[in-house]
Amino acid sequence: MKMTKQDTAILLIHCPDRTGIIRAVTDFLYENNGNVVYLDQHSDHSCGEFFMRIEWEIADFQISREKIGEYFDTLIARKFGMMWSLHFSNQKKRVAVFVTKLSHCLYDILYRFHSQEWNMEIPLIISNHETLRPIAEQFDIPFYHIPITKANKAEQEARQLELLAEHQVDLIVLARYMQILSDDFVLHYPRKIINIHHSFLPAFVGSKPYHAAFERGVKIIGATSHYVTAELDAGPIIAQGTAHVTHKERVQDFIRKGKDNEKIVLSKAIAKDLQHKILVCNNRTIVFD
Amino acid sequence: MKMTKQDTAILLIHCPDRTGIIRAVTDFLYENNGNVVYLDQHSDHSCGEFFMRIEWEIADFQISREKIGEYFDTLIARKFGMMWSLHFSNQKKRVAVFVTKLSHCLYDILYRFHSQEWNMEIPLIISNHETLRPIAEQFDIPFYHIPITKANKAEQEARQLELLAEHQVDLIVLARYMQILSDDFVLHYPRKIINIHHSFLPAFVGSKPYHAAFERGVKIIGATSHYVTAELDAGPIIAQGTAHVTHKERVQDFIRKGKDNEKIVLSKAIAKDLQHKILVCNNRTIVFD
Amino acid sequence: MKMTKQDTAILLIHCPDRTGIIRAVTDFLYENNGNVVYLDQHSDHSCGEFFMRIEWEIADFQISREKIGEYFDTLIARKFGMMWSLHFSNQKKRVAVFVTKLSHCLYDILYRFHSQEWNMEIPLIISNHETLRPIAEQFDIPFYHIPITKANKAEQEARQLELLAEHQVDLIVLARYMQILSDDFVLHYPRKIINIHHSFLPAFVGSKPYHAAFERGVKIIGATSHYVTAELDAGPIIAQGTAHVTHKERVQDFIRKGKDNEKIVLSKAIAKDLQHKILVCNNRTIVFD
Amino acid sequence: MKMTKQDTAILLIHCPDRTGIIRAVTDFLYENNGNVVYLDQHSDHSCGEFFMRIEWEIADFQISREKIGEYFDTLIARKFGMMWSLHFSNQKKRVAVFVTKLSHCLYDILYRFHSQEWNMEIPLIISNHETLRPIAEQFDIPFYHIPITKANKAEQEARQLELLAEHQVDLIVLARYMQILSDDFVLHYPRKIINIHHSFLPAFVGSKPYHAAFERGVKIIGATSHYVTAELDAGPIIAQGTAHVTHKERVQDFIRKGKDNEKIVLSKAIAKDLQHKILVCNNRTIVFD
Repeated sequence: MKMTKQDTAILLIHCPDRTGIIRAVTDFLYENNGNVVYLDQHSDHSCGEFFMRIEWEIADFQISREKIGEYFDTLIARKFGMMWSLHFSNQKKRVAVFVTKLSHCLYDILYRFHSQEWNMEIPLIISNHETLRPIAEQFDIPFYHIPITKANKAEQEARQLELLAEHQVDLIVLARYMQILSDDFVLHYPRKIINIHHSFLPAFVGSKPYHAAFERGVKIIGATSHYVTAELDAGPIIAQGTAHVTHKERVQDFIRKGKDNEKIVLSKAIAKDLQHKILVCNNRTIVFD
Repeated sequence: MKMTKQDTAILLIHCPDRTGIIRAVTDFLYENNGNVVYLDQHSDHSCGEFFMRIEWEIADFQISREKIGEYFDTLIARKFGMMWSLHFSNQKKRVAVFVTKLSHCLYDILYRFHSQEWNMEIPLIISNHETLRPIAEQFDIPFYHIPITKANKAEQEARQLELLAEHQVDLIVLARYMQILSDDFVLHYPRKIINIHHSFLPAFVGSKPYHAAFERGVKIIGATSHYVTAELDAGPIIAQGTAHVTHKERVQDFIRKGKDNEKIVLSKAIAKDLQHKILVCNNRTIVFD
Repeated sequence: MKMTKQDTAILLIHCPDRTGIIRAVTDFLYENNGNVVYLDQHSDHSCGEFFMRIEWEIADFQISREKIGEYFDTLIARKFGMMWSLHFSNQKKRVAVFVTKLSHCLYDILYRFHSQEWNMEIPLIISNHETLRPIAEQFDIPFYHIPITKANKAEQEARQLELLAEHQVDLIVLARYMQILSDDFVLHYPRKIINIHHSFLPAFVGSKPYHAAFERGVKIIGATSHYVTAELDAGPIIAQGTAHVTHKERVQDFIRKGKDNEKIVLSKAIAKDLQHKILVCNNRTIVFD
Repeated sequence: MKMTKQDTAILLIHCPDRTGIIRAVTDFLYENNGNVVYLDQHSDHSCGEFFMRIEWEIADFQISREKIGEYFDTLIARKFGMMWSLHFSNQKKRVAVFVTKLSHCLYDILYRFHSQEWNMEIPLIISNHETLRPIAEQFDIPFYHIPITKANKAEQEARQLELLAEHQVDLIVLARYMQILSDDFVLHYPRKIINIHHSFLPAFVGSKPYHAAFERGVKIIGATSHYVTAELDAGPIIAQGTAHVTHKERVQDFIRKGKDNEKIVLSKAIAKDLQHKILVCNNRTIVFD
C-alpha cells in the first residue's frame, strides 16, 4: 500500500459532553505534527453527548499508523470516556448490495462505483430473485441468488452471513431488497446495514407505501434512507428526500417519480457512510457535512 | 356592483366520467357567446369521476347572471348527473380567521388581505386567547375572544356559530388554532374549514408534531393544509411543504423554521380555495393550477 | 404491429387563439367514436396562440390510422389555421445519444431504456472520445467514435448526419457532449436536439459554469435542459433543477453534486419529449403534465 | 444591563490559514473558564484564509467583558495575524429598513421583530414614497419620507446618512427599496447593507428581472439576498431561494409567487447577520449554521 502525501487518518469520537475536548484532541494532533484537514463537532443537548470527526494528513505524523489507536486511547480517550473509531482514507469499505427485482438503485450505485465517485469495493450482490443477474454481469460483480421462503429463511440468512463473512463485508446496502431481515441477522451488522424505504418516514411504514400515500391524497411523496435495526423502518434516519405530486398522478406515477428520489437519497446516505461522517445519538443521526 | 369587461363566471363541476362532457359544456358556452378564459379538467380513475373548472367572460354572455345556474342545470347538468357550483369573480368570499397565540400565519394572511393579493373580506377574527387582539386592531378587524374549556365548549362553539352566521362567513381558516372543533361544528361548514397542521401528514398527527419529529430524528420537517373533517388531521390535503433540518437543530429550531413553512403552505391553500380551484374525490383533492 | 385496446393517437396542435377550438376538436373525436384519455390545452397571452394536446383510444375510432391526418386537416385544422402533428402510442422514437467522457447522464438514460421506463429505441451512441465505449458495449448499443478537431469538424458532422439519417433518428440527446454543433447541423434537427447545460440558465452560459458559479459565490447551483438552437445555450428551456451548496463545498463538490441534478433534469426533459408533451411559443416551452 | 447565566460573547475571526489556530483559541477560552457553546470554522482553499465563530458563556469567564478584546488581541490575534470582531448576545443590532412601495418584505420583517423572533431594534424606516407609512404606524416605528430624484439624490442621501448616524444604525436592510445607492453611501456601511434582489443572481441583474425571466422562458425563478457593494447586484451572496413556474404562469404570477420567495430569503439573510454568522472571502460568504 503506497503512502501518498494525501493519505489521511480519520477519528470519529463521541463521549459525555464537557469542556476541553476539542482542545485536547487538537493538542494531540498538533503536538504530533498532524495537519488537520477536517474538523467538525456537535454537542447534542438531547443526549448530553459530544460528537466529533477529525481528519489529518499522516505523512508527517509522528505516531505510526499502527500505533495511533493505542496512543490516542491511552493519552486522550480514556480521560474523557470516549468511544472512538479510527479509519484511513486509503482503506476501501467492502460493500454488499442486496436487491430483489427493481434496478434503479442498483444502477445508481454501480454507476458511481464504476466511475470511481466512491471509495469502495463491491465484492458481491445478493438477491432473492434472478432478475437482476444480467446487470451484475454487465459490471462483472459476483451475483448470488438466494431465494427466501418462510420455510427456508433461517438457513438462507445463514448462507448470506457466510458469504458476507467470506467476502469481509463492512457495509450492507439494501437497494430495494424486498425481504425483512431477521433480528438475528441485523445483530451481526449493527449500524452497518443501510436501507432505502420508499416513503417519508415515519409516514407509511411497511409495504406498498406509494399506494398508501395515494390513498391518503398526499401532495408530496418521500424516500428515507436509514440504518436497519430490529424494529421495521424505525432505525436512525440518514437522509430524506421528497418530490411533489398532483391529482393528475396515479399510483404508477408515484412509483416512477419515487424511483428517482429513492436512488438519490440512498446514494447520499451511502456516500456519507463511506466517508465516515455518520454518528448516532438516541436513534438520531449526526451527519457531518 | 359595476359589471366590467373582465367579470367572469366560474363553474365547478363533477360527475361520473363518460365521453362528451367537455364537448357539451364548451358547446353550451360557445353557443351562448361565452368567451372561455380558463378550462381545466381531470378524469380520476380511482373514483371514476370527471372534474372540471371552466371560467368565461360574462359581459357578452347571452344568459343573464341570475339565470345561468338554471339554464346550465336544465340543459347540461341533469343529462350528465353533474354536481356543480357557480361563482362570480366579483363576489368576495367572507373569511373568518381562528387563532390562538401564534401570530405568523395570521400576519401572513392579513398582509395578503391588506395588499389586496386575495379576493376576500375578513369580517372577524376569533380566538380562545386575548394574545393576538392587538394585531387584529392593527388591521381594524373585529376580534372576538371566546375562551374554551372542557366545560363550556358546547356553548362557546354555539356562540362561534352564531357569529359566523351573523357575519355570513363562507370560509373558516384555522391559523394555528389550538382547539379541536367538535364534529357538530365541522358539519356546519363541510369543506369550508381549512386547517394548517404543523407536520408532514400523515406523519405526526395530533399535538406537538415538531417534538415527535425531533424524537424520530427526521431530516425533513413538513406542514400540511387540509380541509377539516370529523376525524382529526385526516381531511383532504390541499397543500404540503417541507424544509430540511440537520442534527444541529433542536426542537425550538424546528418550530422556528417550521413557522415559515406553515404560513406559506396555509396561504397557498387559502388562495386556491378563494379561486374556486379545489374539488374533492375520495378524500383526495383535485387542485387546479 | 398488433393493435391493442390501449393503443392511442395523439394530436399536438397550435393555432391563433380564438373561441371554439376545444369544442371543434372534441366534437371531431366524439362524432367519430374516439374515447379521449388525455386533454390539456393552453392559451398563451404573450404569443396569442392556442396550444393543445389530445389523446384518444383508436381501437374503435371510425377513421383509420392512415386517414386521421387527412381528415383532421380537411375538417378542422384548415378552418382554424392550425399547425399540427399526429403521433401513435405504439410508435417508438429513435434516439441518438451524443456523449464525450462523462458517464452519469448516459447511465441514467440507459438504465431507463433498459428497464423500459421509456418508449424509445437507441439505435446508436456517438462520441468524440473512446472513453464511454465500454458502457455502450455493456448495453449492446452500437458506438461510433467520431473525433472532432477544428480542421475536421465539417466533415465529421457530415458523417454524423449520415449516421443519423441511416438510423432514422427522431431525437438527438446531448448527454454532456462537449462540442458545439454547427448552425448547419442544428438546422437538420429543429427542436429535435435536447441538451443538458450544467448551470441555471441564463446564468453561466458557455463552458466551466460550475467554476463561474463558485467564483460568484452562489448558494444554489442548477442545471437546464433545452432544445438546441443556433445561439449557444439560448434555446427553449424544457426543465430546470437546482441544488443547494454551502461555503464548505469546493468546485469539485459543485461538479459532483451537479451531476445528480443534471441527470435527473435531462431525463425529465427526454421523458416529456418522448410523450409528445412539449410545444414552443416564442422560445418558451409549453410542457404539459 | 443584567448579566444572566445565558449571556454569551461571540468572536468572529479570520486569518491566514495555518496549524494551531483552533487549539490556540480553544486554549484561551478553556484556561479562562469560558464554557464554549458554539464553535464552527472553515478553511477556505480558494482564499487561503481560516474563518471561525466561537461563542462562550461569560458569566464565569475570568476576563471582564471590557477587557476581552484587549486580552484576545494581545495574546492570540497578533500571533496569527487575525482580523476579529467581538459581540455580546445581550447587545441588539439597530436596523434601519429602506422600502419603496411593496410591503411583503417589510411585513415579514416587522412580524419577526414584533414576535421577538430576532434580537434587534428597528429605530426607523426610510422610504422614497409615502405608500407604506401606514404600516410603520401600525407598528409604531418612525417613518421618514425621503423622495429621491436625479437632481436631489446627493443631498437626500446625505440626509439619510444623518438619520442613520443619529439613530446609531448598525445594519441597513433594503426591503425592495427601488433606488440604487451611490458608491459614497455604500462606503459608509461596508458589509452592513443587505439587499434582496428578485432574481436568481447572477441571472437577470438590474430592473424588471421577472419580466426578463418570463421572456427567457425559465422554469424556475429565484431571489437573492446579498451585501451591497459599489457594483450593482454583484456583492457577496448570503442566501438564495427558488420557486418552480410553468407555462401557465404569466409575469404577474411570477411576481406574486416571487414575493413569497423574496421575503423568506431576505429574512434568512437578516437572521444570519443578526447572529454574527457571516464572514466574507473573495466576495463569497461563509455562512455558519
